[in-house]
Amino acid sequence: MSAWYYERGPESDVVISSRVRLARNLKDYPFPHRMSRQQEAEVVGIVRDSILNNSKSGMEFTFINMNEISPLDRQAMVEKHLISPEMTESGSFRGLLLSSDEKVSIMINEEDHLRIQCLYPGLNLAEAWQLCNSMDDLLEQKVEYAFDERYGYLTCCPTNAGTGIRASVMLHLPALIMTGYIKNVLEVCAKIGIAVRGLYGEHSEATGNMFQLSNQVTMGQSEQDIVESITGIATQVIEQERMLRKELYRQNPIKIEDTIYRSLGVFSNARIISSEESLKLLSDIRLGVEMGIIKDITIEKLNEIMLKIQPANLQKVCNRQLTPEERDVQRAELIRKLLTT
Amino acid sequence: MSAWYYERGPESDVVISSRVRLARNLKDYPFPHRMSRQQEAEVVGIVRDSILNNSKSGMEFTFINMNEISPLDRQAMVEKHLISPEMTESGSFRGLLLSSDEKVSIMINEEDHLRIQCLYPGLNLAEAWQLCNSMDDLLEQKVEYAFDERYGYLTCCPTNAGTGIRASVMLHLPALIMTGYIKNVLEVCAKIGIAVRGLYGEHSEATGNMFQLSNQVTMGQSEQDIVESITGIATQVIEQERMLRKELYRQNPIKIEDTIYRSLGVFSNARIISSEESLKLLSDIRLGVEMGIIKDITIEKLNEIMLKIQPANLQKVCNRQLTPEERDVQRAELIRKLLTT
Repeated sequence: MSAWYYERGPESDVVISSRVRLARNLKDYPFPHRMSRQQEAEVVGIVRDSILNNSKSGMEFTFINMNEISPLDRQAMVEKHLISPEMTESGSFRGLLLSSDEKVSIMINEEDHLRIQCLYPGLNLAEAWQLCNSMDDLLEQKVEYAFDERYGYLTCCPTNAGTGIRASVMLHLPALIMTGYIKNVLEVCAKIGIAVRGLYGEHSEATGNMFQLSNQVTMGQSEQDIVESITGIATQVIEQERMLRKELYRQNPIKIEDTIYRSLGVFSNARIISSEESLKLLSDIRLGVEMGIIKDITIEKLNEIMLKIQPANLQKVCNRQLTPEERDVQRAELIRKLLTT
Repeated sequence: MSAWYYERGPESDVVISSRVRLARNLKDYPFPHRMSRQQEAEVVGIVRDSILNNSKSGMEFTFINMNEISPLDRQAMVEKHLISPEMTESGSFRGLLLSSDEKVSIMINEEDHLRIQCLYPGLNLAEAWQLCNSMDDLLEQKVEYAFDERYGYLTCCPTNAGTGIRASVMLHLPALIMTGYIKNVLEVCAKIGIAVRGLYGEHSEATGNMFQLSNQVTMGQSEQDIVESITGIATQVIEQERMLRKELYRQNPIKIEDTIYRSLGVFSNARIISSEESLKLLSDIRLGVEMGIIKDITIEKLNEIMLKIQPANLQKVCNRQLTPEERDVQRAELIRKLLTT
């Protein structure tokens, strides 16, 4: 099993991951927030069986009843970007189909009946889309989707109707931030209908200089066009970020190295460290690795650390509930352990 | 040759060094600021010959004509506390007799004709005084001091007249600072006539949590009493500092370790670092070593670093003049080198 965050993908010096998700609903059921418990159970059952009893996927899936796992386990999955925060809410019958490599997660009874998500390391929306598409085809052989000839796939929120696709890339943009040029990127994105969000989606800040670019419109364009358009924009942003990194380094190499190594020094020596400070320092260290300044740490190691030091995953590693104060101590300990293994 | 800063003395967990200096003037010459060049040269010659041609000292001395060495070399000696800042001023003929272990320095034509200084690592005023006293006796066999039955040894500044002794100890008091109790120490010292200064004497701030305690009065008390009184006060301050360190550690060990290791992390990883920040971080690291939290760095190593990263000594190590910006880069490089050798 090799989860997305243990692998290095294309353009990994700037791109953390690529994600494609499709929103789908079953024709014969009301949207999730209007379903009865009985209907919820039926939808979960239908989707689960369509995948679990389907050898054509070529992948191994596990079914998880979201109500049967602890809030901590749910939160840990959010932190790994395997499910959306909505999936952690109790009250409804929600299910998850997760592939063994954690690249495919099919959320059942999220905002829509189905959210098919594929997550790849680096810039790889094309492959993520291809896999999403084949999972979608597989499901469509077993279930009937709510589909309208004029509007396309129908979704709970009209902004998702049409193709039902959201293609997003997570970018690490420290040089754009340092130089202030991120403002221009944000302006351009706003003009051409690209949403920019932080590390943890819709309402999150750009923690650790991480930015998620995704399409806002899902109608009037083919999935292929949307994927290509986001890839195109991302490629331009990547080039700008790379150019600025080179320029910053050319102007004052020691200054950049100083910033990077000071952060590494604090990160690898602190005994108490918050999640927020960790992500800030990780950004500097990642920049150092991405620029080839730090040579004995890999991007994969940084991804592993980034995920494992999040509150829920940290508690899972420690195998017990931790107060926020305890977390800050355990986080520092885990960082030192992970950096030396 | 083992200079004071490469050795560990008594109470080295709190005390950096102990210094005794005697102010003396020759009977037949006016005070230095009123001497002619001819008289300056005569005084230097008399004192130099009294020591260099004297086998009784049992020590090896080098004579240095202060005008013949570079301003950088002079400044480097100030940073090592071997001479006073006054000795670096050009214009007069000043000489220095320095013992090979750098424990004794006899400044000629500073504010007074003679300043006999003995510097020891740790709390060791008694030995410093003993050595000073024997050097004084040695000189008195060869020269006639300006001495008054009523006022004692006559000095340029009346505050030094009498015994002409100044006994001082350099203390590292981070816990007293952290807890704010340093205020009480300063108040008590002021009341009982103890002067408190920073790392570099009269007009310096308490950089790096270093405090120098010394007697203000030199008249009406014997040298022995003054040495014992300063030793006594220092011993009390040492006990307070130790108690507060223990208490701080008892209250929140991780917090202290966090502070110490973060400072070590920055200190050992920075690529640009000022003298001021270095001393601040060194104080935390020193506390870590003194408390036994950091085990693989010695106090001697920290003393060596503390001296070598000062502006003039740094330039001597690098063997060339450096701009302040270059110094900050070279300092960071030297720190990393010294920490790993």
